[in-house]
Order: sequence, then structure tokens, then C-alpha cells
Amino acid sequence: MLPRGRARALGAAALLLLLLDPGSVPCAPTPCVSPGGRPRGAAAVDGDPPAHRGGHSRSDCVPPRPPLPKCELLHVAVVCAGHNSSRDLVTLVKSVLFYRKNPLHFHLVTDATARNILEMLFHTWMVPAVRVSFYDAEELKPQISWIPNKHYSGLYGLMKLVLPGVLPPDLARVIVLDTDVTFASDIAELWALFAHFSDEQVIGLVENQSDWYLGNLWRNHRPWPALGRGFNTGVILLWLDRLRQAGWEQMWKLTAGQELLTLPSTSLADQDIFNAVIKEHPGLVQPLPCVWNVQLSDHTLAERCYSEAADLKVIHWNSPKKLRVKNKHVAYFRNLYLTFLEYDGNLLRRELFGCPSPPPSGAKQLQQALAHLDEEDACFEFRQQQLMVHRVHVTFLPHVPPPGRPHDVTLVAQLSMDRLQMLEALCRHWPGPMSLALYLTDAEAQQFLRFVEASAVLSARQDVAYHVVYREGPLYPVNQLRNVALAQALTPYVFLSDIDFLPAFSLYDYLRASIEQLQLGSEQKAALVVPAFETLHYRFSFPSSKAELLALLDSGALYTFRFHEWPRGHAATDYVRWRQARTPYRVQWAADYEPYVVVPRDCPRYDPRFVGFGWNKVAHIVELDAQEYELLVLPEAFTIHLPHAPSLDISRFRSSPTYRDCLQALKDEFHQDLSRRYGAAALKYLTALQQPRGA
Amino acid sequence: MLPRGRARALGAAALLLLLLDPGSVPCAPTPCVSPGGRPRGAAAVDGDPPAHRGGHSRSDCVPPRPPLPKCELLHVAVVCAGHNSSRDLVTLVKSVLFYRKNPLHFHLVTDATARNILEMLFHTWMVPAVRVSFYDAEELKPQISWIPNKHYSGLYGLMKLVLPGVLPPDLARVIVLDTDVTFASDIAELWALFAHFSDEQVIGLVENQSDWYLGNLWRNHRPWPALGRGFNTGVILLWLDRLRQAGWEQMWKLTAGQELLTLPSTSLADQDIFNAVIKEHPGLVQPLPCVWNVQLSDHTLAERCYSEAADLKVIHWNSPKKLRVKNKHVAYFRNLYLTFLEYDGNLLRRELFGCPSPPPSGAKQLQQALAHLDEEDACFEFRQQQLMVHRVHVTFLPHVPPPGRPHDVTLVAQLSMDRLQMLEALCRHWPGPMSLALYLTDAEAQQFLRFVEASAVLSARQDVAYHVVYREGPLYPVNQLRNVALAQALTPYVFLSDIDFLPAFSLYDYLRASIEQLQLGSEQKAALVVPAFETLHYRFSFPSSKAELLALLDSGALYTFRFHEWPRGHAATDYVRWRQARTPYRVQWAADYEPYVVVPRDCPRYDPRFVGFGWNKVAHIVELDAQEYELLVLPEAFTIHLPHAPSLDISRFRSSPTYRDCLQALKDEFHQDLSRRYGAAALKYLTALQQPRGA
Repeated sequence: MLPRGRARALGAAALLLLLLDPGSVPCAPTPCVSPGGRPRGAAAVDGDPPAHRGGHSRSDCVPPRPPLPKCELLHVAVVCAGHNSSRDLVTLVKSVLFYRKNPLHFHLVTDATARNILEMLFHTWMVPAVRVSFYDAEELKPQISWIPNKHYSGLYGLMKLVLPGVLPPDLARVIVLDTDVTFASDIAELWALFAHFSDEQVIGLVENQSDWYLGNLWRNHRPWPALGRGFNTGVILLWLDRLRQAGWEQMWKLTAGQELLTLPSTSLADQDIFNAVIKEHPGLVQPLPCVWNVQLSDHTLAERCYSEAADLKVIHWNSPKKLRVKNKHVAYFRNLYLTFLEYDGNLLRRELFGCPSPPPSGAKQLQQALAHLDEEDACFEFRQQQLMVHRVHVTFLPHVPPPGRPHDVTLVAQLSMDRLQMLEALCRHWPGPMSLALYLTDAEAQQFLRFVEASAVLSARQDVAYHVVYREGPLYPVNQLRNVALAQALTPYVFLSDIDFLPAFSLYDYLRASIEQLQLGSEQKAALVVPAFETLHYRFSFPSSKAELLALLDSGALYTFRFHEWPRGHAATDYVRWRQARTPYRVQWAADYEPYVVVPRDCPRYDPRFVGFGWNKVAHIVELDAQEYELLVLPEAFTIHLPHAPSLDISRFRSSPTYRDCLQALKDEFHQDLSRRYGAAALKYLTALQQPRGA
Repeated sequence: MLPRGRARALGAAALLLLLLDPGSVPCAPTPCVSPGGRPRGAAAVDGDPPAHRGGHSRSDCVPPRPPLPKCELLHVAVVCAGHNSSRDLVTLVKSVLFYRKNPLHFHLVTDATARNILEMLFHTWMVPAVRVSFYDAEELKPQISWIPNKHYSGLYGLMKLVLPGVLPPDLARVIVLDTDVTFASDIAELWALFAHFSDEQVIGLVENQSDWYLGNLWRNHRPWPALGRGFNTGVILLWLDRLRQAGWEQMWKLTAGQELLTLPSTSLADQDIFNAVIKEHPGLVQPLPCVWNVQLSDHTLAERCYSEAADLKVIHWNSPKKLRVKNKHVAYFRNLYLTFLEYDGNLLRRELFGCPSPPPSGAKQLQQALAHLDEEDACFEFRQQQLMVHRVHVTFLPHVPPPGRPHDVTLVAQLSMDRLQMLEALCRHWPGPMSLALYLTDAEAQQFLRFVEASAVLSARQDVAYHVVYREGPLYPVNQLRNVALAQALTPYVFLSDIDFLPAFSLYDYLRASIEQLQLGSEQKAALVVPAFETLHYRFSFPSSKAELLALLDSGALYTFRFHEWPRGHAATDYVRWRQARTPYRVQWAADYEPYVVVPRDCPRYDPRFVGFGWNKVAHIVELDAQEYELLVLPEAFTIHLPHAPSLDISRFRSSPTYRDCLQALKDEFHQDLSRRYGAAALKYLTALQQPRGA
């Protein structure tokens, strides 16, 4: 095997020298026609760079590219595990969608975390002509867990090897991408390179743009075998059915097994194994032009690729240092990356021209519902906003589900950028799990990410789940946001709060003790009320006990919540009774009552028709009361509202001339629904609604 | 002339029928080669749409495109007048820059407003390989003011006609664009179409995609003459030297003059005249593929163009309704437009690969200065931020310069998104001119625009100038922002304020009277101090007189500014004396004194080394004192600070562990500069600095 192997290696090396010259574009055996119709060898066009020392004149030789059939479906596979890779995948997908003109089918090999995130994301994104299939990475582990891997990608870094077996058997070809890749061109051009494969070639790869596989990086550096510099597996054209026919599974397992007899592990995960196989079978590989995988690690030699080519197609940040790599042109690449990182994903929801495809699930009904709206309706914006399906990225940051403590409670709230500063304080007041929905643009989501990373307090907490709901539409979808946060809560109970409130330091433990004591949920269908207060003072010393709070109340440093403008919101809590109370006491529902409550997680959702501001919590308490939840006020619980300038969203809302009328219309419709569902019992709320309002 | 003209018209019409079929791509006389190397007439490729009824099979005929010489300089001309067109131009330029790979030279015909804005913008933008030349629209008016024009573009809408005479005589060819155009492709592809011109053709245009010129839109509708549907002048390829040789000036003047004998005016500005000339001389025009000017007005027939083509190149919003036009695919186009509207312009500051060009003015020194910074320096971010040149768009919204009232004062301040709500209150308190710098991203700038448009209070004010300084870098460049606002003030005096302060209702008039009385500037070198107060109460009734303010002070509803945390900031104002004072009184500078003052506009600038927060105003007052401005406190003036949550910027700043040390380093350097400039007089400040700080 060795002499043949060596000869083959030499031949391959020679081939590589000719073909992998980063500046040249490989020519297929068919006659070349230059872009201007000039035959090969003709005089160079003005301004062309001089012929490369490899012997080819780059400018006068471009193989004819048969155009792809219009609307051909392109397949892309990515292995993606964990919260951070999921975010990277989104940026990759945005860059692909930006330039693409073909329908796409993404095949995602994911762990439970990534699946959770990406399934919800694509479902709510509703991009036309995009289909997504998920494959459980957990199930694949046995196939590769026998391979020791030192690379930080762990077992997931080995999974590309098993794609031919995992992907559907009728799928002939696929592009495989790492998550740290950004497109700067139409992916159809990459797919078109399949046409250059000779009959024996089964895998398309770009040369590895570092000296790693040359083996001379340090003393005792022993990389896996490879042809010359080897190939980088960040971007792969996989001819799946040929691979299957060629017995790929046996091939790589045999090779890997052999190498592991002398090497302790892989260093670069599946890339090492691909290269070892290719070294033995060089005829398998079709080298791709370097512009399709411009690698930006520290040791990169990528500059040889693009210092002459003006046309970079795909950027690959193959370094843990990512944007901090030192590379002469990194500013250019970083700008490209940032473009897509912050790009408004809603803008990618566009139809493909001339490629009709079935609408994404839910899109058709949505369009019909929207089409039925009357644009002349004064409350058109309200109706429209209610129907909108917002793109949602759950657990945007690393999050560890709570450990299953008994009677555990998740604090649930929603916010936007202007309240980020409340997060640290909230973390200091509430040591338990939280589920928070954030209404952000793509660009704000990146700012938020940096904010959390820069905060010691926030970074330390793994039990606070942040769910990004992407902004769209003119009105604030407050109840949709609350519902997202509520749906993502993972404990049996939830504390339904607002972002401007700081709970008593003792509240978390006290709630859990109360839940246990009252046997909330199992024996007792109730909503536990946490009395709400407010301070008007900008600087304020938070009371550490009920007694302290009462003293502040008496001194006028604190008030019951909205005491001055709208006491009806919380009067039914009966603060006078609360002062003396030592045990939980029941209160009756009253019109406009909107307390902060603790309920079992399977409580009714918030009504999404209430967008903007006004009555969005009231409706929920009405629903709870209609479903016969008892309202029990806790004697030692309290939460305090801090003052803040009105948000831009709320100012915009209140300046709208129509909002009052529209709010009334929404209330009326809500009550009609109530009547339908609860019959005579709903009368109580209707009567209350019709009473004249106090000051 | 008529028979020949008619024959010519018929011939041209026939030509048009063949060529202007929106789906077809015109073929030049040279042999066509299909993209796959197949000769014309060969079998269609799989998936190609059926042959168009025009007789050509679109797919099998693409004229060979000789590639442009690498790095060829491309010229683009735009007529741009007023604030709103200037904003539109920026979006156009962003879309061009996004896709371009060639050096560009923009030729802008502007009024004073647009020139003001765009000169500053391009100068601070510092995009490599972009050159900008300005041409005064005012000077061109006499050449076209004799033409009555009903179109909303007024005289500016006629100026394209005179471009051959206005642009440099050695400029051979130029692309002319309207400001309401967005690119979705590389402008070099458009430039390459010059190669298709026959020797007689001098102007490339796309067919007008509406029925306007067919003349049958309503009874008595009399459009200007045109060939068939005529051409749209939103995108023009002008072969300038051929136009000059052909006697263009005479040609269009003659034609226009003749038509105006029977038509009262133009309706579509210079487009009408271009069409009339072309009707008489059809051989002048090279029709361009419709994808280069997809017109999106209400009457558009653009769908005939792109319902088959998947490759739109340029979108033209040629309707005053802009994004509200009703068009089946408007969502697609709007998304493209929004992409660039909100795109971070900083990301376009990238070098062109392989096309070395002289760096923009100022860029070289900036790069050298940045290169000299020590990355290991703990205060690296501070140094870096100070050196940064931020992109600036002055007068972002329509603004009318103040009328030259005597002793007029401009309120000067800076802010970011989180303080937008202060603007309406500020407008209610200050009826005079304002110059405000806003630190925003491109996306925030659009939100800001909508915010002002939706506010009756803000829209009503034409004397408030908003200058957008685009965010870049981690630290808040507070003094750079103040300097922008200060430099843009147009009155002889300025009131240097902060955004969280609301001035007394009477302050504007009172300041002007005081300035007159004290003869500030001419006789008296002074800074007039406006005493600063603060309320800690979220809800607060603003005092309408000094007496009311004193009552609030006495009752504890108001305090002197930062009374609790940092009284040294304003103690030197001597509030005790102020209570009784009836005439202005002099105070002495004291360490850390940072009052709000009124000074002549030509006062010293703020020191830009102070980024982030801390000492940025103190240093300015030190400078004023060093330059011997007397500090005079005004007895009837006051301004009150409203409480607000700390901004994200300030929280980030204060959480930085290094900021205190770096601030100290900056102060030390400031004092060294002072010593250099003022010698022994600077000792006073140094001594004060070294005193131990009180609580």
C-alpha cells in the first residue's frame, strides 16, 4: 500500500500544486471560454493582473457554467448544538437568505437545546421557500463516540462523518456548512460547482489555509495525515449517493481506526478524518476555489487567496477568537459579518420571484386573516398587530433549566431595551429562576448580548432565561410577550410580574413556603396576590421587612401602587387589612383589579388582543376569576415599583388619538368572548365594566 | 420634417416593440453567446421559461459582456436639493456602496442645504475610493428657469438637462440617478452597458413603466411627445462627450421651446424634455433592460418586467407616496429599501481589494494616530474613542435658520435615543432656536425621524436643528457631540445645556434681555450662569416664577442640583445669594464647578478627550475661566433637572473598572495642556485639582 500510496500522494501533490494555487480557478477538461467570448490564450484584457506563476493566466480561463435549473431546490446541512452555536446559525442563515434566489431545505443536526430554539425560530420566522428538517444529534453519538477528540467542538465536531447515513436516502447532494460561516454571495453558485465533479469525485472542499497539516508548527506536532495542506471542512459539497455507493461509512471508520492506533485523538475533529481518508483516496476530492471558504484563523494564509481575487464568496471564522483574529483585512470581514449579525431578519420574509412554493405553515391563514382586515378601520393597527406572528428566539443566552426543586416559582416578565438596567437589580432581589421576554430588533439583541456579557451579576446567573421576540409593527404586543415568557417557564409555579417592580428580598423563599403550605394547585385553586407598592423617589432605600415597608408607607416615602392616579388597580387587595394580616386572606374580584399574582404554570394565557397599553393585565385577572381561581393575599409578600420615564412605546401609544376608542372596542370584544365561554357568570364583569368610571 | 419624423417614429416604434418588451434583453449586433457556450437558437435549458411572444427566446441570448477594466473609476451624478432629498441620497449611496467593487466619483448638483449636509457627511464618512464633487444648483437656475414645470421637483427637476455643460469637460461618461433609487446590484454592471451603445447612441434609458406618455389617462390629458411609452429618466447612462459633440444644448432648448408653444409647462420635469428630444431623434437612445429601473409608482406596469426576471437591479420609488404605493410585490421592494435605510453606514468604510486608491482626506493621519496607540494601555478605549471621527449628518430634518433677531440665543445640547421624550417638553419650555446633537445608529435615526413626524409639537418647530452623529466605539463621545451642536448654532449666543434640564418658561426672553443689557460679547467678556436645580419627584409641577421656585425649594420638593451627591458641582453659584439677588452678580471659579452658561457662540470648544462621563463640563468651565470669561449669575434665570434612570451608556461606563483611573489620567493631561497654553495662570487649576476631595 505504501509505494502506491506515496506515488498517489505525489501525484496528488502535483495536482494540488496546480489546482490549489489559491489564485487559480480549476479548469474542467471541456474547452474553456473566457467571459468575453475570447478563446483561451488570447491577450489579457486591460487591467488584468499578470499571469500567476502557477502557469495559468487566471483571467482568460473560466469553465462554462451551465446555469442551474430555475428554482432548483438546494439542500444545506449544518451540525448545531447549544445556545451559542444556535445564534451563530441564525447569522449564517440570514447571510444565505439575503443573496439566495432558490428554494432551500436546511437539514439541521441538533441537540435538544438547539432544536428547541431553532424549531421555534423557523416556525415563527415563516420565510417563504425555506424548509427545515431536524435530526437528533443524541442518536448519532454512538456512531462516533469511540473517537477521542481534543477539539472544543467535542462529539458534535465529528458528526459530519455520519451525514450520508443520517440524511434521507433519497437526498443525492448537500452543501455542509459550519455555523461560523458567513455568505457574501448566492449559494446557488456554490451548488453549481457540483457540475464540475468528475465521475469519481464525491466531495468538494477548499484547501486548508494554514500550515497545520504540514506538521511543522511545533516540536512533536503530529497532525493527522493529509494531502499537502489538506482541506478545510467548514464548507463541503457532499455527493451523498455516490458516497453511499462508495461505501463511505466503512471507508472512514477503517481509516480512523487505523490512525488511532498511532495517534491519541483527533485535534481538528472530523476534519482530521476527512483528510486522512482523502490522503488514501485522492481521487475522491474535487478541490473548490478558495473564495468559497476564506478561513480567518490566526495562522491563516487566506491572504494568498483574496489579495488577487476581488470576489470573496464565503467567510469562515474558524478560530475561537472569532472577530479578534489578527488579520490584515479583518475590518472588511468583520463588517460583512456585522452586517448580517444585526440585519433585520423580518426583511428576509420575502417571496422568491418566479419560484412559486407552498407557503410556510401558518402563513396562508395569516395572510387571509390580514387580508380580511378593513384598512379604513380606525383600529386597523390594533387588529393587525394582534395577528402578527413575531419571530421568537427562546433562550437567547446560555440557560440551565432549574433542577426541579419542589414548589419552585419562576418570575415572569417582559421588557425592551430601555429597561435593561432593571435586570441587575432584579437579579439581586430574586435568587430564583426567571423567564423574561425581550422585545428587540436584531441590532438591539446584539447590544443586549454584550450588556449581559459585560455584567458580572447577570453572567453569573444561569437560571434566568432570556427570550428575544423580534420587533415588528407599530404597537407594543405586551400580552404576546408575556405569553412567550409564560410558556417558557419550567417550574410548576409562576410569579407574574412587571419589569419595573423589585420584589422583597425574601419573596422567593416566602412564595415557595406559601405554595407548600397552601398546597397551591393540587388542593387549592388560587392566585396568590403579592401586594404592590411604589416609590416616587428617585433614590430609595429598599425595605428589608414588612415592618420597614410599613414605616416608609406611613412616612410617605412609599405609596400603594398608583395611589394617586388609579387606585382601583389594586384597591381590592385591601391594604388596610394587609397591614395587620398574619395569615393569607381572601379578597373578591373588583372592576379594573390587576394585582401581581402567583399561579400554577398551567394558568390561562394573557389575551393577545390587548396590544399597546391599557387593560392587558385586567383582562387576565378577569379570566382567572371566571375560572374560579380564589384571590388570596399573602401577608408577608410585597413588591415595589420604581419610577421611570415613560418608554418611547408608551409615549407613542398615548399620543395616538385612536387608542382610547380602540381600547374600548377591544374590551367589548373581550366581554363578548367571555359571555360565549362562561355564560351567565360573565355578566358580573360586564356589569362592572358599564359602571361609570371614578376619577 | 413631419413625414420623415413619422417614418422615423414608426421605425422607432417597431424597434421599441422588439426591444422594449419588458422581458427581453436587447442583443447587440455582435454574435450572441449563451451563458453555457451554446450558440443562439439552441435548445432552451431545462427550466427556462417559454419563449416570449416578442419572438426572442430570452434565455438563449445574452450579448457577450467584455469585463470592465479592473478598478475602472465610475462616475455618478445626482441632483439633490433640500433636507429630505439629502436623506434619500444617503440611502441611495449606501446601496451603491454595498455592492460596488470599483472606485466611485459622485458628482452632486446641490443647493446650499444639501451641500452643507453632504459635504460634512462625506468628509466624516471617509469611505475609501469614493470621491465627491459639488456643483452649485443656484448657478444653473438661469439656464432652465424659463421652463414652466408643474412637477413637485420644481427647478431642480430640470437640471439633468444641463449636466453635459456643468460636469467637467474631460468627463466622458456618467450614470445619472434620481435620489429615490435603490441599488440591488453592482453598479459596474450598469456602467458596462455603455459598451452596447452604437456609435450614434448617446443616452441609455429604460422604458417608462406607465401609460403616462400614451396620453389617455384622462380627458384632455396632453403629455409631452414621446416614443410609445417613452423613457424614464430616473436612471440614465449619459455619454457626455458625444452629447456635447452632437450639440445637445441646442437640441433640447430648441425642442423644449417648440413644445412650449403649444403646451403650458412640463408635467414630469426634465423627463418630458428628454422624451420630446428622443422622439425627434430616436437614434440617440440605447434602450436599457427594464431591470435597471424598476419603477414603483401607482400606475406602474413594472410587473411586466420582473414577473419573469428574477434579477432586479435597481428599484425606483418614483411616486410621492413612496413606500405606500399599492403594488403586488411592494413588500419585497420595501424590504430592500429598508435594508439600506437602516444599514450601518460605518460598515461601508471598507477598502476595495486590489484597487489601491489614495486614502480619503484625514484618513491617513487618523490611521497613523490609531496605530500609535498602545493596545495594552488600560485606557486604550478612551484614547481610541477620542481619535474616532464620527460620521455626521447635520440638519437631519427640515430646518429654517433663525431670522437674525438681535441678541438671539440657541439652546445647545446632546442626547441619544433614551431621551427622546424630553424633546417635546423642551420645546414647550424654550420657544427659541435649538441645536441638538443626537448619538444614534442608522436604524435609530429612522426611528427618531418617525418620532418627530408623529409629534405635533416637534413637527411644528422649524427652528430646532437635529444633527445626527452616528454611533461608533464603546464610549460615549459626549464632548464631541456638544461640539457638533455648538458648531452648528447660528445665533450670536448659545445656552450650553443638558438634555435632562427644563429651562424656566421665561428663560429665552430673559436671556436675550440680559444679553442686551449686559452687552455680552462686545463690552463684556462673560459667561452668564443659569442656576441649576433638581427635583427628585417623578411627578412635578414646574414653577412659573422665581418666587414659586423658592417656595418649592423651601418645602423640599426641589433641591439645588446634585445637592446630595456632589454639591461642589454648583456650590460656587452661591444659591443663598441668588435667592435675594435682583441684579447679576459675579462669582469666582472653584474646583469642579460646572454651571450651565450662556456665552457668545465663538467660545472655546469642549475638550474631546473627555469621553464617557465625568469632568466633561468642568474642563470647559476651566477653559472659560482661563480665558478670563467673567462668571455672572443671573438673578431671574433657572433650569431644573428631571429624574431619569441612568442611561445604558452611563451604566456601562460606571461598571468599567478602569474608568476612574483613566479619567484621572485625562485630567492630568488636560492640566498639562493648560500649563502649556496659559503658563503660570494655569497653576490655580492644578492646585485646586490636588486638593483632597470632600465627600
